[in-house]
Amino acid sequence: MHKLVLIRHGESTWNLENRFTGWTDVELTPTGVSQAMSAGKLLKAEGYEFDIAYTSVLKRAIHTLNYCLDEMDRSWLPVVKDWRLNERHYGGLQGLNKADMAKQYGDEQVLIWRRSYDTPPPALEANDPRGQRQDLRYAKLPADAVPLTECLKDTVARVLPCWNDSLAPAIKAGQRIVIAAHGNSIRALVKYLDNIGNADIVGVNIPNGIPLVYELDADLKPIKSYYLGDAEAAAKAAAAVAAQGKR
Amino acid sequence: MHKLVLIRHGESTWNLENRFTGWTDVELTPTGVSQAMSAGKLLKAEGYEFDIAYTSVLKRAIHTLNYCLDEMDRSWLPVVKDWRLNERHYGGLQGLNKADMAKQYGDEQVLIWRRSYDTPPPALEANDPRGQRQDLRYAKLPADAVPLTECLKDTVARVLPCWNDSLAPAIKAGQRIVIAAHGNSIRALVKYLDNIGNADIVGVNIPNGIPLVYELDADLKPIKSYYLGDAEAAAKAAAAVAAQGKR
Repeated sequence: MHKLVLIRHGESTWNLENRFTGWTDVELTPTGVSQAMSAGKLLKAEGYEFDIAYTSVLKRAIHTLNYCLDEMDRSWLPVVKDWRLNERHYGGLQGLNKADMAKQYGDEQVLIWRRSYDTPPPALEANDPRGQRQDLRYAKLPADAVPLTECLKDTVARVLPCWNDSLAPAIKAGQRIVIAAHGNSIRALVKYLDNIGNADIVGVNIPNGIPLVYELDADLKPIKSYYLGDAEAAAKAAAAVAAQGKR
Repeated sequence: MHKLVLIRHGESTWNLENRFTGWTDVELTPTGVSQAMSAGKLLKAEGYEFDIAYTSVLKRAIHTLNYCLDEMDRSWLPVVKDWRLNERHYGGLQGLNKADMAKQYGDEQVLIWRRSYDTPPPALEANDPRGQRQDLRYAKLPADAVPLTECLKDTVARVLPCWNDSLAPAIKAGQRIVIAAHGNSIRALVKYLDNIGNADIVGVNIPNGIPLVYELDADLKPIKSYYLGDAEAAAKAAAAVAAQGKR
């Protein structure tokens, strides 16, 4: 039996301001830092050990991982930073306020942008300063691999190669893995692991900074999954995420 | 022409307490944090860019690198943590006060322990709790690769394979590298790069948190090397390191 631990980054400055973030590289808030530290304390208290950690190339996930590993006294663990674990790209919504958008376009439209499986938000222009095509960290990728917008289907399409090429082979080889990533890159993994349909994934919300444990069989099929710590607090936090796009 | 940047970690709690540290995994002091941040600010102001960063598996170097990269807004850079970049192992001196040892054994004996090229301090017992043979981060190494003491010659003998296998090929391939490491692992590299004799390396002291730049030709021979920022401050800081083992 394998264990895989997924952690959504702690609260970021734009989570706090209720803005669409996507690939914008915003920092953790003090609450986010303490969520990351709590995740590390919980993993340590429960005796979790890892061989390798994965994260995105966005600092809210990288710093969440660092704080978490520091609390576990495991800052020496190897860390792989993979852009394919980035948050879903939010296109032309990046930087805009979720509640403002709900006032302007209605709750339903915002829910579609936030949670539709295959309808992306309006795309950014390639040279929009809110975009990432000039960002050094993606300079080695083909330009068209850097999205101008994404629906969850697009996110799944880049997260799954990361799973198939990197994560799954490592887990099968016995590596104990923790992944610090984002709401939608984690939803992409959860959708795949739990075989959730395109229509049902809309109801899945990942709370910030609470370790989500998957117990997997030898074929990496889930035996069970659960949040570490207080189950009620995790459910409340997930419900709060679901409510973010309302007026 | 290649550029390689070496940074000794910022002040650690045991630097502050004037204790022999070696492989003991102590944290940065607030001064050490601000030295690390200053190194990052300096590198950013001078327009340095890196493709990959290397550090040891000790948190004072890892955190120095993290603070430095954060200041450069480059926390997304890939980081390799290699135990071969660890500080020299200080054997039975780990944890003891440098000035106390000088009172007890004399300045000359302490200088030999600190700076002799081929005389190691007394070895730890294999099961000494101050040793690292039970430490998870070294669990994949053959037990006898985890030292019980080291002289600089021993440190050179493990740093050079890291240079030859990892660092030199990457630099030759055009990778711009920053290394956050330790007084003696950096002295090992400096000795090799500048071809310093066994007797002369005793006079080389590396200050905390000041980027040391090597400009290397195509064969990785040094064209020149210099500390970034205020040269006088760097010289003073190096002199202070030299004076640490005196009564």
